[in-house]
Amino acid sequence: MSRILSTGPLPGSRKSYRGDLHVPVREIELTTGEVVERYDTSGPYTELGYVPDLVRGLPAPVRSRNHPTQLLAARAGEITTEMAYVAAREHLPAELVRDEVAAGRAVIPANVNHPESEPMIIGKRFLVKVNANIGTSAVTSSPAEEVEKMVWATRWGADTVMDLSTGPRIHETREWILRNSPVPIGTVPIYQALERVNGDPTALTWDVYRDVVVEQCEQGVDYMTVHAGVRMEYVPLTVGRKTGIVSRGGSILAAWCLAHHRENFLYTHFDALCEILRAYDVTFSLGDGLRPGSVHDANDDAQLAELRTLGELTKVAKQHGVQTMIEGPGHVPMDKIAENVRLQQEWCDEAPFYTLGPLATDVAPGYDHITSAIGAAMIAWHGTAMLCYVTPKEHLGLPDRDDVKAGVIAYKIAAHAADVAKGHPGARAHDDQLSDARFEFRWADQFALALDPETAQSFHDETLPAAPAKTAHFCSMCGPKFCSMRISHDLRTTYADEIRRAAGALAPRTDAVPGAQPDAVPGAQPDAVPGATSAEVAYAEAGMAAMSAEFRAAGSRIYLPLEPRTGDSPEPRAEGSVGPRGEG
Amino acid sequence: MSRILSTGPLPGSRKSYRGDLHVPVREIELTTGEVVERYDTSGPYTELGYVPDLVRGLPAPVRSRNHPTQLLAARAGEITTEMAYVAAREHLPAELVRDEVAAGRAVIPANVNHPESEPMIIGKRFLVKVNANIGTSAVTSSPAEEVEKMVWATRWGADTVMDLSTGPRIHETREWILRNSPVPIGTVPIYQALERVNGDPTALTWDVYRDVVVEQCEQGVDYMTVHAGVRMEYVPLTVGRKTGIVSRGGSILAAWCLAHHRENFLYTHFDALCEILRAYDVTFSLGDGLRPGSVHDANDDAQLAELRTLGELTKVAKQHGVQTMIEGPGHVPMDKIAENVRLQQEWCDEAPFYTLGPLATDVAPGYDHITSAIGAAMIAWHGTAMLCYVTPKEHLGLPDRDDVKAGVIAYKIAAHAADVAKGHPGARAHDDQLSDARFEFRWADQFALALDPETAQSFHDETLPAAPAKTAHFCSMCGPKFCSMRISHDLRTTYADEIRRAAGALAPRTDAVPGAQPDAVPGAQPDAVPGATSAEVAYAEAGMAAMSAEFRAAGSRIYLPLEPRTGDSPEPRAEGSVGPRGEG
Repeated sequence: MSRILSTGPLPGSRKSYRGDLHVPVREIELTTGEVVERYDTSGPYTELGYVPDLVRGLPAPVRSRNHPTQLLAARAGEITTEMAYVAAREHLPAELVRDEVAAGRAVIPANVNHPESEPMIIGKRFLVKVNANIGTSAVTSSPAEEVEKMVWATRWGADTVMDLSTGPRIHETREWILRNSPVPIGTVPIYQALERVNGDPTALTWDVYRDVVVEQCEQGVDYMTVHAGVRMEYVPLTVGRKTGIVSRGGSILAAWCLAHHRENFLYTHFDALCEILRAYDVTFSLGDGLRPGSVHDANDDAQLAELRTLGELTKVAKQHGVQTMIEGPGHVPMDKIAENVRLQQEWCDEAPFYTLGPLATDVAPGYDHITSAIGAAMIAWHGTAMLCYVTPKEHLGLPDRDDVKAGVIAYKIAAHAADVAKGHPGARAHDDQLSDARFEFRWADQFALALDPETAQSFHDETLPAAPAKTAHFCSMCGPKFCSMRISHDLRTTYADEIRRAAGALAPRTDAVPGAQPDAVPGAQPDAVPGATSAEVAYAEAGMAAMSAEFRAAGSRIYLPLEPRTGDSPEPRAEGSVGPRGEG
Repeated sequence: MSRILSTGPLPGSRKSYRGDLHVPVREIELTTGEVVERYDTSGPYTELGYVPDLVRGLPAPVRSRNHPTQLLAARAGEITTEMAYVAAREHLPAELVRDEVAAGRAVIPANVNHPESEPMIIGKRFLVKVNANIGTSAVTSSPAEEVEKMVWATRWGADTVMDLSTGPRIHETREWILRNSPVPIGTVPIYQALERVNGDPTALTWDVYRDVVVEQCEQGVDYMTVHAGVRMEYVPLTVGRKTGIVSRGGSILAAWCLAHHRENFLYTHFDALCEILRAYDVTFSLGDGLRPGSVHDANDDAQLAELRTLGELTKVAKQHGVQTMIEGPGHVPMDKIAENVRLQQEWCDEAPFYTLGPLATDVAPGYDHITSAIGAAMIAWHGTAMLCYVTPKEHLGLPDRDDVKAGVIAYKIAAHAADVAKGHPGARAHDDQLSDARFEFRWADQFALALDPETAQSFHDETLPAAPAKTAHFCSMCGPKFCSMRISHDLRTTYADEIRRAAGALAPRTDAVPGAQPDAVPGAQPDAVPGATSAEVAYAEAGMAAMSAEFRAAGSRIYLPLEPRTGDSPEPRAEGSVGPRGEG
């Protein structure tokens, strides 16, 4: 059974744990000897030699939970084990975690009945998180296959997984996922409720729904999408839309409201719902049932009316001590993205925003991981705390294994790009490590540091599969003669003195502060500006011929050899210095 | 020989031409009978039954060119044939085209010796354009294969193609490409100049370079990347970088400057260069030889010093009457993207900006079409006029056919997302047409309207290959029972009266103007807000039971049946109404 699971470390990585709290990290040992760390979501499945047992599930550490919810504990000034854990995981102070949770600006989705999950935090002051949706539908997939999808998604970096199963074995599938998941699991309870009434939305009742919620809380679901903001009176606001109601839960509840001519039972029973979720510390993910399904419908009356209601419900949930985040669109053109975050933050008391994409355009079915990664990166930069992935199959069919990976990687890109743009502490270190490896032609390190080491290496192998190419100072894009990095490197390795002299004699008296006056062109001499003459500019010639001869004698390379860094193995690049370089 | 070319129309499309100027369009006939148009870059290759002759090349219409350059003609108030052509192509007034060209805010790259090319315009007031790089390297590819890459790239929407060949048959390859290209061709002449001196940057001379430029102008190259802004004194500014100089031309010229201890010969001979380009109306693409190669190096002193110099050179080129655009980075985190455009526009007199990506993060080699599509969409929204694509193979190897397509599609997405965000006239119509098709379950129309009809259809075929599924009112993502669009559609098709009554009785007195007060929650009644009580909210019950019964009797569907639009074939959706819908 375990053979269907993707286990073992990623290429170039090893799984490790830190401290008493056993906080997971992915360690990457570079060829320089340096070891760098990555936030890790993959659970024990990436341990070397780990043998999973799907029936027993993951080991479940006992954590003392003597508080009703993380929110109430934080308000009481307590730093829970989970807070300490996520603080260590994010390299941030535990007090910051506590204060953000207390203010409702962050949530730690951790059902008391899901001890297998490694605590994580969702909030704008922390790393941007990514959710991956999985789940059986009526026609596909077994529970074990869904466990593999969860393992596969978290292997590539999914921070939470939503089980959107709608098939006949919905309880069993969820049980398998929960018992084997190292990440929080979210659900949309109305799907199971609808199964209970044989798929007829009008037959839904509060009692049926409540029973489903209690069942899922008991099982250990960490957060639940609840479309309590789809009020009956907002349904008519969707009539002028291009794409009506595109949320499944939203459309089901709209049908119910109109069939019964009554207010949404999730809205009218919201207090009761809060009491249930509070008892298990389940986090609300207040669903945007009226989210836009096309850029045409973005930021329209229906969407914003619901968002205001979600703001009201956030306050209610927080009064009950229930952690709450808010779901967001969907399909939004770039110019309306910032506004989405601004209104959500203002109306929902800065509760964490959790958006699906959004797609920045509707014209590319088959590529909606890309159309939406654009919107996702931007909305996360503006303050969204978690991004729900979109796969290439969106709008067209059920994602397979490759689609799940494509979606997760696209969203890890979007999330990380946002962390970098936000200046999140330590985020750019990943980029810098990879850029160093790139500039120093440490190909193996580039692959290991990549979000997807396997794809990076396989692309390189396509044209230069031989082992020596992995230390060569060029790649097949430009070949040895045209490799700018090689030339640039050569410049730097040989002629540091030359560069220093040039810098001293010629460096422009400028700072590149944006907004400096355009007429202060750095170093420009009036007589050196083309337009005055087409003859060669008069230039200080003194000493140049001699310096030039010296430069050529040394092989026409310019900077100093790179000094091995402290801690580097001696001469780490010796191997790469032979061979192709001689051909340049 | 022609068998290696990708010819024939895209699925669901046909090639057509408009008016006396024979302006190409792609027509898509929808199943509703409506015919929509797309901007088309693919040349005659997508005509039905077109038989290419690579040796003779494309037919070359004779256009009267009695002006030296488009810029000088525009300044003289003339509307050239090319201006009229691009105006028709973009559905914008010819006067706007002329005025933008006259101001130097737009360029029409059209060498007098490249009559095979269909005129197009690059400027921020027009559709955002996409360039695809192709070209042989020392180890790969024949000229005919490069022609196919060009045909393939333009088939998917590349607006221009740069031939970056560096191999032994560089002149011959370019000749084949030019004679067969319906789009402007760009080059980087220093690559050929370097071949002339056997790959030794220090052996380059102005004479060698000038001869290459003249040769390429004679052949018909439409725009040329010239790294005239890499001044010797800026080279030391790159010493503190993570990734040095990553432009091939930039690194070659930096090596030359330091070897000779002389100013860049392209800078000192810039006037002479202007005179040559002016004679053929070749457009400058002033290269950013010191662009950042990592997010670490973005917006640094070296980059901005060069940009200021490019601003000076722009003024010089324009004095000579030479059309000019400015190349830009590269690698830029999201928070520094807007600043790039602002400074470029300010310092370069609003000359069109032409950027490579930029990549918003460095951590995902193998996925740099995505990391850069994020940056590209944003920078185009801020005013970049043309985007140079990045393929998944960037940094790792030479792109193959699949990579070229992946790069072009990712960049068409970015460009279009920017057009939509900018509110470019007519841009969102594409999204709306596709959204209409989606909401009305016209699957065949969705595929035909997609940027890549083949991929969209093949993804749908994976789970629902049967023909009836192409008109079914659901897809495999959710199945019939959970399809929100089907439910939403059902709501709308049956119970319009109900909706109208609900709208009249219950519609919130709200406008969704951003910034409206959060306490003005639309339609909220104090006693309807959860938190006051967990009992069901007191609601106006009068008449509800009767209305509810009426609704159920009609099948629990709510909106009016869709009226066929004017011009639609009668009952276009009759086919889709049978079958699966009955199962919901």
